[in-house]
Amino acid sequence: MSTELLIGIHSVEAALNYDAGNIVELYVESDSQNPRVRELAERARELGVKPHARDRAALDRMTGGGRHQGVAARYKAPPARSDAELPALIEAAGSEALFLVLDGVTDPHNLGACLRSAEAAGVTAVIVPKDRAVGMTATVRRASAGAADRVPLVAATNLARALRVLKDAGVWLTGLAGEATISLHAIDFRGPVAIVMGGEGEGMRRLTREACDHLAHIPMKGRVESLNVSVATGIALFEVLRQRGAGR
Amino acid sequence: MSTELLIGIHSVEAALNYDAGNIVELYVESDSQNPRVRELAERARELGVKPHARDRAALDRMTGGGRHQGVAARYKAPPARSDAELPALIEAAGSEALFLVLDGVTDPHNLGACLRSAEAAGVTAVIVPKDRAVGMTATVRRASAGAADRVPLVAATNLARALRVLKDAGVWLTGLAGEATISLHAIDFRGPVAIVMGGEGEGMRRLTREACDHLAHIPMKGRVESLNVSVATGIALFEVLRQRGAGR
Repeated sequence: MSTELLIGIHSVEAALNYDAGNIVELYVESDSQNPRVRELAERARELGVKPHARDRAALDRMTGGGRHQGVAARYKAPPARSDAELPALIEAAGSEALFLVLDGVTDPHNLGACLRSAEAAGVTAVIVPKDRAVGMTATVRRASAGAADRVPLVAATNLARALRVLKDAGVWLTGLAGEATISLHAIDFRGPVAIVMGGEGEGMRRLTREACDHLAHIPMKGRVESLNVSVATGIALFEVLRQRGAGR
Repeated sequence: MSTELLIGIHSVEAALNYDAGNIVELYVESDSQNPRVRELAERARELGVKPHARDRAALDRMTGGGRHQGVAARYKAPPARSDAELPALIEAAGSEALFLVLDGVTDPHNLGACLRSAEAAGVTAVIVPKDRAVGMTATVRRASAGAADRVPLVAATNLARALRVLKDAGVWLTGLAGEATISLHAIDFRGPVAIVMGGEGEGMRRLTREACDHLAHIPMKGRVESLNVSVATGIALFEVLRQRGAGR
């Protein structure tokens, strides 16, 4: 089992709050003047995680000079799943299946916010291309408010093939594209679906776009050509939930 | 007329693309090796804005050592409006009035993304408390993709009083709060409305919350208690547009 080093108060706090059992070691600056660091150590003890005192120089070395704020933790991050697990995920979710496909979201703030929205929407899994997406950096974890380690993540070796697996299992794929003529609200999201998003710059790649059953746009009234990708993702995911009867 | 210094490629590019007429002076690093800087200078000339060459040391001094990437511009930012203009804005918008009230959004990425969504949704105006919100920093401008200077912004001296002005003019105020019992989708957003959002940490202040006609939540399925504030703002604004018939 490989471990990762989480650094900084937010990342470590999120791991403590949502997945304390997978914190292997917790390091806290011995003479920290920051009350939040002391609170975090306190909370860790309550949860049965023993904080190890280290001086600042040791933390600096351990984190390679990263912005640790006096806290770091060795964490057993849940491993990303492979394409091979998709059929089982689809089967288990049934007609409630809701996948989020992110084809090349590269900004860690955006990826983190997308994962946070995906978790809040209760997605079956988030699917990213193995080679193209950003990894689970400390920034992603922070921006996801802890969701990065809780939402099932599939790292697809070949995204086009993964999308084919979804289609063959009866999942309908809707890609979001500003130039599409169909409105998001005109699409029926009851039944198993996937929302497919392109990256911030170039959008979806051609093969990804061609794999979609529909392309849809979010109806707008302003002059900006596009929304932030994490905002557009949130709007699409919560439109699916709305159509499925959430909050009525 | 006061001016502001925009620094960095994104900020200057956005001002050029959307509001070139208000660029008073454009400074470009004379021996920049960055092709994007040269393209930007080219584009400026096409738009009738003359780029002034400066060496890197001069740009460093001018920007106080900021991350200028070889570009800076003096820009006449549209001034924020005052509360006194609210009645005229409400009147002009009629039944299509859609305000976004941000009570204490302090993260510049989030504020920028909120302004971008607000512009895309065609809001009447964004209302922020004068003393509590972050200013229009370079980060806000960048994250807003140029919307920061295009969406009408009202800086309210007293937010509670500004909300009272909205109410007295027949605008219905819906505040978003995770603990609210009513669903966002159960609220009727046809007619003049305002969406009220709290800040990232503490949410809405008491007086702001009490001014709302409804409190509503976005129905969720995960374990995260809340969405990123800019994602939640986008979902609420585009729910208003959907109810008003956008994209049907």
